[in-house]
Amino acid sequence: MSNVLSFSGGIDSTSLLLKLLCKKTDIYALTFNYGQKHSIEIEFAKQNISHLTDFGFNIKHQIIDISDLVNILESSLTNNDIEVPEGHYLDENMKSTFVPNRNAIFSSIIYAYAISIYKRTNKHVTLSLGVHAGDHLIYPDCRPNFYKQIMESFKIGNWDSKYIDIYLPYIDINKSDIIKDGIKSCKILGLDYKSIYKNTLTTYFPDKNGASTGKTGSDIERILAFHEIGVKDPGLYLKPWEELLEYALQSEENINS
Amino acid sequence: MSNVLSFSGGIDSTSLLLKLLCKKTDIYALTFNYGQKHSIEIEFAKQNISHLTDFGFNIKHQIIDISDLVNILESSLTNNDIEVPEGHYLDENMKSTFVPNRNAIFSSIIYAYAISIYKRTNKHVTLSLGVHAGDHLIYPDCRPNFYKQIMESFKIGNWDSKYIDIYLPYIDINKSDIIKDGIKSCKILGLDYKSIYKNTLTTYFPDKNGASTGKTGSDIERILAFHEIGVKDPGLYLKPWEELLEYALQSEENINS
Repeated sequence: MSNVLSFSGGIDSTSLLLKLLCKKTDIYALTFNYGQKHSIEIEFAKQNISHLTDFGFNIKHQIIDISDLVNILESSLTNNDIEVPEGHYLDENMKSTFVPNRNAIFSSIIYAYAISIYKRTNKHVTLSLGVHAGDHLIYPDCRPNFYKQIMESFKIGNWDSKYIDIYLPYIDINKSDIIKDGIKSCKILGLDYKSIYKNTLTTYFPDKNGASTGKTGSDIERILAFHEIGVKDPGLYLKPWEELLEYALQSEENINS
Repeated sequence: MSNVLSFSGGIDSTSLLLKLLCKKTDIYALTFNYGQKHSIEIEFAKQNISHLTDFGFNIKHQIIDISDLVNILESSLTNNDIEVPEGHYLDENMKSTFVPNRNAIFSSIIYAYAISIYKRTNKHVTLSLGVHAGDHLIYPDCRPNFYKQIMESFKIGNWDSKYIDIYLPYIDINKSDIIKDGIKSCKILGLDYKSIYKNTLTTYFPDKNGASTGKTGSDIERILAFHEIGVKDPGLYLKPWEELLEYALQSEENINS
């Protein structure tokens, strides 16, 4: 049995990778360079793979360059003439961070990879994605029904689809539960969760070292998730934890008021 | 109203382009470099766009480079260590020409482009594909049900999907009817169909100039389609028409016997 996963290097896919490592199967991780402005996330992804390799884990990691897509996609995450907004995920201006059909593009490539691995190895392949409940609020291509539909189309569109299983363990849980799950996997694997999570990039607006102001929607969601489980985020920030937390809590309050 | 189409430069998408030109809307054509061994088809696509531009037609043509996919896809069309087979489409060995999930990958990118064009222009966009009945026999990702399912997932996965219409005019007809349709469009547009169709690449195994032996599955289908409507194929071949036709008819007879 092999496991294929989409590995952006963020919190969700990193927690997923740890979960899969606990299962002791062959692991193939795919990271996309789709021309995202925050492409430093790819370096973070590499760092964590390298860190895990040092601990003896065997992961086949490939970066797939589809960055030519920036020439056709309209999104603040890819176009230099549209600014990445600051603020809470639920703010109206966050809609500009939606990349049209991105998860459909990623899923179809990962599925193609899963089929290809099956053809090479003749072993069942599990395709895993770290999509989760928190994303659904803003991004329509994170909803369970979207994944249900698109996976059904892949099943119809490929001869060997009966050898591909789909695994979406986080689809009904939120980010804090994902982090808890990741910390649990670290314990099982004998890893320090801090050295893993410090190498995860979440912000859409990192500086050149990948450090964040903590003010984009994805930052705020992450900071609140760590806060919820009573753990200080080991991620790379330009400001002290207390200040980040205050901003995140204030943003949450503004949304709820 | 704008029209977006997937334009490989083959018979089907070229006929589709001609059909769309008759509608006099804005046209955006997308050609994929996915690492296909027969990437000379991209040059053929460019030649026809340039030919049509010389006649005053306005087409925004973009080549999208996703050739990094060769590193993960398992198919005789992309891997140098697997030979492209000769023979009829229905021969068992033709299965190696299937590129896992290819049409899902293409469709999701084209849909992303359609959404992006809508966001830029605020005008309805029609997404057109030249998929046709003849393909269904061998490729599962050419079946109407596959397209129905995947388009439904895109609809769920994007906010602006209500502004995107899908147009698959050839889904229930075969290649000879597509060529007839293309010849009809040429008449309406005042174009010589021969100068258009000589710039269409069909073979999976062209020489460096794009000329074909006429012996791959896609060649045979094309040759028989031209024969069916009583027209000599103006495509670039390494052998005389009569010889090509004899081989194609013989292959068809072998399959049916």
